[in-house]
Amino acid sequence: MKSSLSCGTSPIVGLRFSIHPMADNFVEIIKGALSKADTSNVWMHTDDVSTVMRGKEIHVFDTAKAIVLHAAATGAHVAFNGTFSIGCPGDTTGDSYLEKEDVLVNEPNVKDYRQYVSSQFGLYPMNNPDYMAIIYKEVERAKECGVFNESMHYASGLHGDIHDVFAFLEETFMHARSEQNKHLVMTVNMSINSPSHKGGS
Amino acid sequence: MKSSLSCGTSPIVGLRFSIHPMADNFVEIIKGALSKADTSNVWMHTDDVSTVMRGKEIHVFDTAKAIVLHAAATGAHVAFNGTFSIGCPGDTTGDSYLEKEDVLVNEPNVKDYRQYVSSQFGLYPMNNPDYMAIIYKEVERAKECGVFNESMHYASGLHGDIHDVFAFLEETFMHARSEQNKHLVMTVNMSINSPSHKGGS
Ligand SMILES: [Ca+2]
Repeated sequence: MKSSLSCGTSPIVGLRFSIHPMADNFVEIIKGALSKADTSNVWMHTDDVSTVMRGKEIHVFDTAKAIVLHAAATGAHVAFNGTFSIGCPGDTTGDSYLEKEDVLVNEPNVKDYRQYVSSQFGLYPMNNPDYMAIIYKEVERAKECGVFNESMHYASGLHGDIHDVFAFLEETFMHARSEQNKHLVMTVNMSINSPSHKGGS
Repeated sequence: MKSSLSCGTSPIVGLRFSIHPMADNFVEIIKGALSKADTSNVWMHTDDVSTVMRGKEIHVFDTAKAIVLHAAATGAHVAFNGTFSIGCPGDTTGDSYLEKEDVLVNEPNVKDYRQYVSSQFGLYPMNNPDYMAIIYKEVERAKECGVFNESMHYASGLHGDIHDVFAFLEETFMHARSEQNKHLVMTVNMSINSPSHKGGS
C-alpha cells in the first residue's frame, strides 16, 4: 500500500515473505539460505517481520524457490509464508530490476534437489466480479497438474515435489490475471520437513 | 474455496493461521499455547500446514490473541501468520458455532499480559471497485490508533502492545466491509520476541 491513488500498469512482481525455521539456530538457517541463493536478479529488503522481493516474474519465482530449498536442505522443519502481488494500483516502478535478462540464475543450482512440500494457497483477483470462477478454474488446474491435495476453508491444499508445486503456482499466478484485471494477489504457505509428514516424498 | 458457486451471506468469521516458534521445542510451545487458550467458542481444525478457526467475530479474535499470547509467554521468538475471512460466496454455514454467547472467555485471562509485537497486515476487499480507498482509510485509522509503524510494499506495518494491535485489526476487519461488499480478506503477520526488537516494548 503506497501513498498514491494513481493507477499503475507495472509488470513488476512483488513477493513479501518469511522463512520460519522451527529450530534454535533459525538465524543461521535463514542467513545461510539467503546467502546460498543468487538474489542478484531481484531487489530485496528485509525488515523485522518479513522480506520483500521485486523483479521480473520469472526471477521472483526462481529466487524464492531457491531460498526455500536452501533452507529446507538443512533438514530443519521450515515454514514459508509469502504473498505474491502484481498490478497494485498504488505500486511504484521503483526498485524494479526489470532490465535483468531472462536467464534463471538459481534453477541450474537447485533443479536436482528433491523436496516434498505440503502447501496451501489463496488467490485474490482484485476488483473482478468473476473472481470466484477464476479461483475454481485454477483449483481445477491444480488437479490436472497433479499437485492438488485437498479442499478446505479459505485456501486450497497442494502438495508434491517443490519444483512441481512452484511451477504450478507460477503458472496460476500468470493465468489468474488479465489485461482488464491486472491486480492479483496470491498467498502461499508451505510446510517442509514437518514431523507431520511421515516419510512423505 | 468450497466446491459450490452459490452465494452466501454467512456472518461466520474464519481464520486460517499458523504459529511458528523459532525453537527446537516448537511442538511443545504450539501444543502448550493451544491448550492454555480456551478454544471452546470456536470450531477448530489443524492440518499439517495450518489451523482453521471459525465462529463469531469476537470469539475468533479473542481466541487468536490468546493463542499468540500464550506462545509468546514462553519467551521464544514466535511468528504468527493468519488470514481472516468473511463473506466468501463459496462458504458454508457448517462448523459455525454461531450460537455461542457474546462473552469473551480468554480476555479475562490474558488482559494483563504485556507483549510488544511488530506486525504487517494487508486488506483485500473482494469484488469492490473502491477497494483502494478502503485500504487507505484503514491505514489512516492505524495512524489515529497509534499502532501504525511504516508504509511498505504489499502491506502496512503496525506495532505496539499486542492488545492495541489486535483491537485495531478487529476494528478494521469490521469497518472494511459493508452490506454491498461482504467478502473481505485480511492477512496478518506478527513477529514476537524477535532478536531484531532490541528491547522494544
Ligand atoms: Ca509464517
